[in-house]
Amino acid sequence: MIELLKQDGLARRGRIRLNHGSVETPAFMPCGTYGSVKGLTPEMIKQTGTQMILGNTFHLMLRPGSALIDKLGGLHHFIGWDGPILTDSGGYQVFSLSDLRKIKDEGVEFRSPVNGDKVWLSPERAMRVQSELQSDIAMVLDECISTTATERELSAAMARTIRWGKQCKQAYDGPGMVFGIVQGGTNPRLREDCVDELCNLGFDGLAIGGLAVGESPDQMYEVVEHTAPILPEQRPRYLMGVGTPQDLVVNAGLGVDMFDCVMPTRNARNAHLFTWDGIIRLRNSRFKADNAPIDQNCDCYTCLNYTRAYLHHLDRCREILGATLLTIHNLHFYQCLMSSLRNAIEQQTYQSFKNNLLKRWRTPAQ
Amino acid sequence: MIELLKQDGLARRGRIRLNHGSVETPAFMPCGTYGSVKGLTPEMIKQTGTQMILGNTFHLMLRPGSALIDKLGGLHHFIGWDGPILTDSGGYQVFSLSDLRKIKDEGVEFRSPVNGDKVWLSPERAMRVQSELQSDIAMVLDECISTTATERELSAAMARTIRWGKQCKQAYDGPGMVFGIVQGGTNPRLREDCVDELCNLGFDGLAIGGLAVGESPDQMYEVVEHTAPILPEQRPRYLMGVGTPQDLVVNAGLGVDMFDCVMPTRNARNAHLFTWDGIIRLRNSRFKADNAPIDQNCDCYTCLNYTRAYLHHLDRCREILGATLLTIHNLHFYQCLMSSLRNAIEQQTYQSFKNNLLKRWRTPAQ
Repeated sequence: MIELLKQDGLARRGRIRLNHGSVETPAFMPCGTYGSVKGLTPEMIKQTGTQMILGNTFHLMLRPGSALIDKLGGLHHFIGWDGPILTDSGGYQVFSLSDLRKIKDEGVEFRSPVNGDKVWLSPERAMRVQSELQSDIAMVLDECISTTATERELSAAMARTIRWGKQCKQAYDGPGMVFGIVQGGTNPRLREDCVDELCNLGFDGLAIGGLAVGESPDQMYEVVEHTAPILPEQRPRYLMGVGTPQDLVVNAGLGVDMFDCVMPTRNARNAHLFTWDGIIRLRNSRFKADNAPIDQNCDCYTCLNYTRAYLHHLDRCREILGATLLTIHNLHFYQCLMSSLRNAIEQQTYQSFKNNLLKRWRTPAQ
Repeated sequence: MIELLKQDGLARRGRIRLNHGSVETPAFMPCGTYGSVKGLTPEMIKQTGTQMILGNTFHLMLRPGSALIDKLGGLHHFIGWDGPILTDSGGYQVFSLSDLRKIKDEGVEFRSPVNGDKVWLSPERAMRVQSELQSDIAMVLDECISTTATERELSAAMARTIRWGKQCKQAYDGPGMVFGIVQGGTNPRLREDCVDELCNLGFDGLAIGGLAVGESPDQMYEVVEHTAPILPEQRPRYLMGVGTPQDLVVNAGLGVDMFDCVMPTRNARNAHLFTWDGIIRLRNSRFKADNAPIDQNCDCYTCLNYTRAYLHHLDRCREILGATLLTIHNLHFYQCLMSSLRNAIEQQTYQSFKNNLLKRWRTPAQ
């Protein structure tokens, strides 16, 4: 369930109560791939304004293994993060990272990219792993399919995703909520059918999957515009793997409550920085002697304490500290954006908030 | 000058007043190679008990360049560290890292390992670079020579080191102190001659160089035992590039006031950890399910918040956060050791302190 505090058009300002605390929505979750948001301590993550993080079932089942994490007290205890955690099902990584995989109706067999071992992931296994991780929200196993697939292939993958979703819901015996995943590519009818089927299964929330996989922003917005409004109003809506600052602003306006993406963290490690005035590519030599902070108006730890020149230098020398400091900035920016977005919905000023930002970001910054 | 607060045998408990604050001695300086103690923010460095850090002239003159750092306000401002900084002269790295180098009486020409450019380092250049870095203590350029060198070669290198030392002292126009460097290998007569010559040049402090380059601990201790007591009593004594916890304890007992070494930081990044009970090699799979902290009795941030199992996992996955957390522990251990050492000298219990620790460390831990 999501408590709807305010609405502005389709945009929703809500609150989700989870085992490890409440999450104010729309919310953005950074990725804690191997049980660590790369380069940040839990205190640093909190200080960026992050409420909830995402843990990757695929990575954690391979290293160090979910049974071990369970034995050691669950993922929260293992990594020292006491806020809410959502875990994905591992499906996305199986399809995107593993070259050698065999998909069957019962599940998917793949080669571990860590050591080449054969690994088996079924709906039951995906849910047992997430139960062992003791996450606050567990995701069903879904079949992710290329955007270039035929309608017939799309349809078959969707049907399998629905069957697996049902099995996942039944199999889960962990402490958290379970979210279903809507697939169906860019085909509106398939998306509708999928929503219909999933609504009967009694999920705690629903995710829109299969986007941010190469389609244009407009194609993505079109699918979300079509799909989000037909999702159950009282359940959280999660748009998986999205996205850019613009994607967050636009999709929240279409009624999405939750987002996750590697973009702020991964881009930080490549000195690709987000600001209210657009992107700064700090690796550019023009910043070599620049004594200003990344963003004059930003109050993150990095902007309050370090210059572009020093951060440029750390990045050039591939110093660990550079990755840490740049990640702090990007994540802080994302969370400020979410906080401003929540505020705009509360104040019923979402439309002008969006229009102002999209106009600002159309002008390339530095 | 060093203010001698207490002595216990040859061991000295002192205080050195520098531009950016006082340093309680014996003191250990971690290495901030490229203007960053790898993986740590300045606040984290401070929290380990570190008073003073070392900056590498060689690395900083190549990237980002000392003229730039000068223009940006000096090294302290550039990296956000407001405590004292000692800079080395770059000599050691020229001799150990650069394959292509030509040594002349006027200086040494070498190829930059960063981009292959020809670089020229003379006594005057080394001091100008350190003056631009605005460090609290600048080191003279010395010729570092292999331990397998003949006495004739050793003697020639020592003579050149003395000439260069004189030129460095005259050339320096920065805000800091200047320390000379005693060379002479393991030859007691050469060391004595070198001390005699340097004493006439009026350095603010003297360093013992050319050790920790492959000789046995006993050989090192013998040279220090012979050299330290003939250094001027009222000047700080700095043993360069040393060393293991045992090396710090033993050499402080021979009258050394200052140390630096990459060991606590570099070893941390290889999961090689120091404790009062000896070394822990955390990469060993026996720690995979170990829910205890690295050291039950350690009160560093890492030991207070994380388990061996999690740190083992982060190291296995080569996660940045692992390097940060393990470095915090090792540096905290080194600084606790120095603090205990200072305390033992104050209490006139140095001998039993040393004997207890050396006995404890002879028994391999885990």
